[in-house]
Amino acid sequence: MAKHTSVSGFPEWTPAQRRFELSIIDRLRERFELYAFEPIETRAIEPLSVLLQKGDDKEIYTLGRLHDAAPKDIVTSSEEKPIDQAPTKIDGLGLHFDLTVPFSRYVQELKHLLTFPFKRYQIQKVWRGERPQEGRYREFYQCDMDIVALENLPIFYDAEMALLLLDALSILPIPPVVLFINNRKVLQGFYQEVGIVDIAAVLRVVDKMAKIGAEKVKVQLTAMNLTESQADAAIGLAGIRGNGSSVIFAIQQLAHTCGIQGDSELLQQGLRELREVSQVVEAAWSDLVSSCDAICLECSRPIVELNLSIARGLDYYTGTVYEGYIIGEESFGAICSGGRYDNLVNDGRQAMPGLGVSIGLTRLMGYIFNRQPQIAEQSASVDVFIILNEDSARFKSFQVAQILRSRKIRADVCHRPMAFGKQIKIAEKRGARYVCFLNENTIEIKNLTTGVQEVVDLDQWQPDLHT
Amino acid sequence: MAKHTSVSGFPEWTPAQRRFELSIIDRLRERFELYAFEPIETRAIEPLSVLLQKGDDKEIYTLGRLHDAAPKDIVTSSEEKPIDQAPTKIDGLGLHFDLTVPFSRYVQELKHLLTFPFKRYQIQKVWRGERPQEGRYREFYQCDMDIVALENLPIFYDAEMALLLLDALSILPIPPVVLFINNRKVLQGFYQEVGIVDIAAVLRVVDKMAKIGAEKVKVQLTAMNLTESQADAAIGLAGIRGNGSSVIFAIQQLAHTCGIQGDSELLQQGLRELREVSQVVEAAWSDLVSSCDAICLECSRPIVELNLSIARGLDYYTGTVYEGYIIGEESFGAICSGGRYDNLVNDGRQAMPGLGVSIGLTRLMGYIFNRQPQIAEQSASVDVFIILNEDSARFKSFQVAQILRSRKIRADVCHRPMAFGKQIKIAEKRGARYVCFLNENTIEIKNLTTGVQEVVDLDQWQPDLHT
Repeated sequence: MAKHTSVSGFPEWTPAQRRFELSIIDRLRERFELYAFEPIETRAIEPLSVLLQKGDDKEIYTLGRLHDAAPKDIVTSSEEKPIDQAPTKIDGLGLHFDLTVPFSRYVQELKHLLTFPFKRYQIQKVWRGERPQEGRYREFYQCDMDIVALENLPIFYDAEMALLLLDALSILPIPPVVLFINNRKVLQGFYQEVGIVDIAAVLRVVDKMAKIGAEKVKVQLTAMNLTESQADAAIGLAGIRGNGSSVIFAIQQLAHTCGIQGDSELLQQGLRELREVSQVVEAAWSDLVSSCDAICLECSRPIVELNLSIARGLDYYTGTVYEGYIIGEESFGAICSGGRYDNLVNDGRQAMPGLGVSIGLTRLMGYIFNRQPQIAEQSASVDVFIILNEDSARFKSFQVAQILRSRKIRADVCHRPMAFGKQIKIAEKRGARYVCFLNENTIEIKNLTTGVQEVVDLDQWQPDLHT
Repeated sequence: MAKHTSVSGFPEWTPAQRRFELSIIDRLRERFELYAFEPIETRAIEPLSVLLQKGDDKEIYTLGRLHDAAPKDIVTSSEEKPIDQAPTKIDGLGLHFDLTVPFSRYVQELKHLLTFPFKRYQIQKVWRGERPQEGRYREFYQCDMDIVALENLPIFYDAEMALLLLDALSILPIPPVVLFINNRKVLQGFYQEVGIVDIAAVLRVVDKMAKIGAEKVKVQLTAMNLTESQADAAIGLAGIRGNGSSVIFAIQQLAHTCGIQGDSELLQQGLRELREVSQVVEAAWSDLVSSCDAICLECSRPIVELNLSIARGLDYYTGTVYEGYIIGEESFGAICSGGRYDNLVNDGRQAMPGLGVSIGLTRLMGYIFNRQPQIAEQSASVDVFIILNEDSARFKSFQVAQILRSRKIRADVCHRPMAFGKQIKIAEKRGARYVCFLNENTIEIKNLTTGVQEVVDLDQWQPDLHT
């Protein structure tokens, strides 16, 4: 069943597709809560001054009113602290374009009510005015998990976050996923040692490696006044991937080739962090990693790999970064991403180190519905469909439905009396596995899969979960 | 814990409050699905031409972009039918202000993919630019249930909808609720017989009875050129309430007093519908209604009553109407409302009769959090809090947490090693009922409620649900 969109970029699912999406959301929520992440929701709107601190202004939807006479939207500060950390002349409101910026504001404003480290998940719609295309929407669910600490957030959490993400991705009915991990300190430290000056600009170019290839990256890098050997170093580094020990060894080899010591504080710290994260993740995820040295399509669960080409374009990442891809569908783009941000959340007195990842839920639903259209249709809206004998039997039929409902069995009564065969067709169309007949003194339930029909005691009867 | 709002009218809950809200939403969803209602979600934005068909333009938020250069929002029609039934010169997009208008559009556009009667629920945020005040927000959850049929929607469904609503309201931890039921055909038929011409205008005035009282309603009605006896008839009718048989009798008595026959087709049909709905609802809800002739504060579950003053301001209702109030808190306003609309959904070829109710979820959350602030705080974010002995024990502690999580027990590890007493304080602050100690060769779990501490087998241990 094709997806339906009458306004370009704003997808709407069928009821069966929404039921499927909700089942995925429910399972994700359960995972997050088992890891003791707390649910929050932030308002959909933010002052433009907050949005413009981190956002691309081209993608922001602003809010207006049809009449100037309408009551004004009043932006007031909370008692504790101003909400505009970097006041600008722009006032007014806009729709949030991600959940990280609102989360950062929420933590600053509600700091006095939260327990730190604060672990939260947030599954909410966001809006971006980008040009719609396959897999890119203007209204979509993001599913975010973040941890923010008051002073120090141990590197162990970077590993735990990767493991939670692997766990969450396991839930999705998609081909195997590879989660790439890197650490920006390693890239930055290495670049510094080979004498690259504009590190942020080089990171943004290297981040395009998977998309445009090494040759074009080199052209762009040399156009930025990098020497041939500096460009080769950046590209050589981005080519390193594998498990923890092999990657650390390859970086040291490359340092030797490039004629650098590899002993700067930043690079050393990056390598320590990368080593600890990979050791913990590989040990905890060992049943998979040990059996798969390389990307492996035989696995049904996600695999994890260090990949030095993962840079993440956003400026606020300071250490570990993550990106997940469906194996063999890299051109679809990352299905999840995130990283460590030690300076993003800041209440004006102290920075609160944080760590977060985001799963592009609506994009994944679109992927699944396009490639496995039948997946949503398999779910039923009702378990037992009650045959209506005649109009005067509505009340009795309703009472039967109520008994089933009180026992947590989904039940519905046919909307009008007609031939039994026609009613059974409706039951099948709605996915019901059982139909129920009201006789004079007995009630019969027919299993539509097995064809078995029997007189039942409604207070005892249970649907057979195996048919 | 006070609610926090830095932008007036846009509430944000604490994590504990959100957890509470989610638990209510989950229970409502379960109820709706047991009644075989299907979940849908519509996009948050609609073309202004769609919104302005039913909405008050003062409350609509329009969407804009910071730059004209940004890619345009393209409104395309679906292949089957135009989305603008009543094209206007206003283009552009706005945020939806309710879920009924988007639902009506959704049914028209996806008609070919739906099974009728289509029963759907929808729990989603809506936005209204009204002046914020207690219990009135600019961003809030509506929780809607609707049934739409292709040709005929039997009156029995009006009773079933009331019963589902009573069932759903039973879930909410609020004082007893009264659900009022009326039928607009009764009012309209009665008004016609006494010679009232502008029936819609009179309905809107009578609808204010509970708020402004009979005297002021009479002043307004006579100002509208109603005769004294017409105004008295309208007010007398609005004063009738009680159970089905007593209300039907009282209406007949009033007709006699007013010197009318009460035999017009419209009035007779209204009375038939009201009688059938009240008979079914009262019979099915009899355990409550039989023991409470009048409004009764002793009941903990909702009660139901016919009330002829309920008119509903909206023009599109054509028969049964519902309004629910917290008993003793009528000034807070209706907590749920809805009714029968036989002409709202229309694909240009045929009208599809419908029936819907809406629960003001965010308003109810605000009510609960203001009056029972402790209710959200009772929920914990974690079941077992694992004591961290030293930094080097992080991995072993994480493994313990993973075992508990795999058994659906929420677990977390303390973020840094410190004195046990301090760690236990953190556990208590987070609502954990258990702390877990990792010894050299054993694992001990302490029940913080009973104080009992014992060596456990992690693969077997279960939290005691009764402490």
